Amino acid sequence: MDMQVRRQRADGERRREAILRQAVSLATVEGLEGLSIGNLADGLGMSKSGVYAHFGSKQDLQLATVDQAERIFRSEVIEPALAAAPGLGQLLAVCDAYLDHLARRTFPGGCFFAGAVLEMGTRPGPVKERVAAFQSSLTALIQGFVVTAIDQEELAADEDPEALTFELNGIILAANSSFVLRDDPHVLELPRRLVRRRLGIPAPAAPENPSRAPRRK
Amino acid sequence: MDMQVRRQRADGERRREAILRQAVSLATVEGLEGLSIGNLADGLGMSKSGVYAHFGSKQDLQLATVDQAERIFRSEVIEPALAAAPGLGQLLAVCDAYLDHLARRTFPGGCFFAGAVLEMGTRPGPVKERVAAFQSSLTALIQGFVVTAIDQEELAADEDPEALTFELNGIILAANSSFVLRDDPHVLELPRRLVRRRLGIPAPAAPENPSRAPRRK
Repeated sequence: MDMQVRRQRADGERRREAILRQAVSLATVEGLEGLSIGNLADGLGMSKSGVYAHFGSKQDLQLATVDQAERIFRSEVIEPALAAAPGLGQLLAVCDAYLDHLARRTFPGGCFFAGAVLEMGTRPGPVKERVAAFQSSLTALIQGFVVTAIDQEELAADEDPEALTFELNGIILAANSSFVLRDDPHVLELPRRLVRRRLGIPAPAAPENPSRAPRRK
Repeated sequence: MDMQVRRQRADGERRREAILRQAVSLATVEGLEGLSIGNLADGLGMSKSGVYAHFGSKQDLQLATVDQAERIFRSEVIEPALAAAPGLGQLLAVCDAYLDHLARRTFPGGCFFAGAVLEMGTRPGPVKERVAAFQSSLTALIQGFVVTAIDQEELAADEDPEALTFELNGIILAANSSFVLRDDPHVLELPRRLVRRRLGIPAPAAPENPSRAPRRK
């Protein structure tokens, strides 16, 4: 492969990634069904044909958007969690990283997947399956953290991993709804405290400083 | 007012209510932004001008749709809760009535307000304010139930009403997401158990029968 072909492919990949980042952001406001080649092109100052060249159909664009949303979620929420100590440390870290992800306003409409689940739930097909598969894998990951924490005696032996995972998911979903509606980082202090109390971890001595999570530049 | 005028007004009100019931249902699938005179007319087999006569603008239609959604929520969730014993009884009843409201599939896309909060959160204006006002009044109602339950010594004196309300809201929001995605009444059994455990109420001896909530006819 000569240099020029290599450079063209790299340029093409960068453009595709820029389109998909915009698509994920836009989907948190307009929904996955609200994505169109036209509004993406407008948002990026590109021609419609320039955007169209990257995606064969609306469904391809939606599937690629969910993939991109998952990459961003992995890098902002799952990777920081996996970097913590296995068990209770990872369980606390995944909840905190989710709340940090909201606080830094990665997307205008909050958590991509919280919205996508409600939107795609009534639309059977490959996009719904993709969103459901993500949801299942995240649930399995968190349940795994709970099981490790029980094995390590950081949580009581009679904790039900499915139930605790559901409760933590509830706290972070309520945090997302509240943050999207109020756009106030203070609303994330209560869910941070609730996660700690539920896991039996002492709250920090000083109140959380909601400005510690960097705003997106 | 003569009989004919009276009858015409009653007919007009019935038609308006039929349009709004359809609008609330459709909004749980397409969003409040996805409502249009055209798709409502299609869904009801009416002419566009017939629908248009009832609503002056898209925003009027959206506001009237939120009002109708609130009337339905009051009759399906809040009134059954208020009929229970004040305090812990009302607290349990409001959660159960919400889960029953999901189980009977009143709307295809689950809880109207769970979706509306995420959709309208990024759209400042009167419709968002209306949705936020509903959310605040529901939160205040549930916190009031908690305060009464503490006063009656049905809950511990050190329960934080704001925190407990947030946790219960999380459980029912997670139930809504799970039900919309899986469309399986069994997913509502875990949140029913969690609400009881959190409130210190023994679970029923026999497992919940998910078919006890009547399907919508």
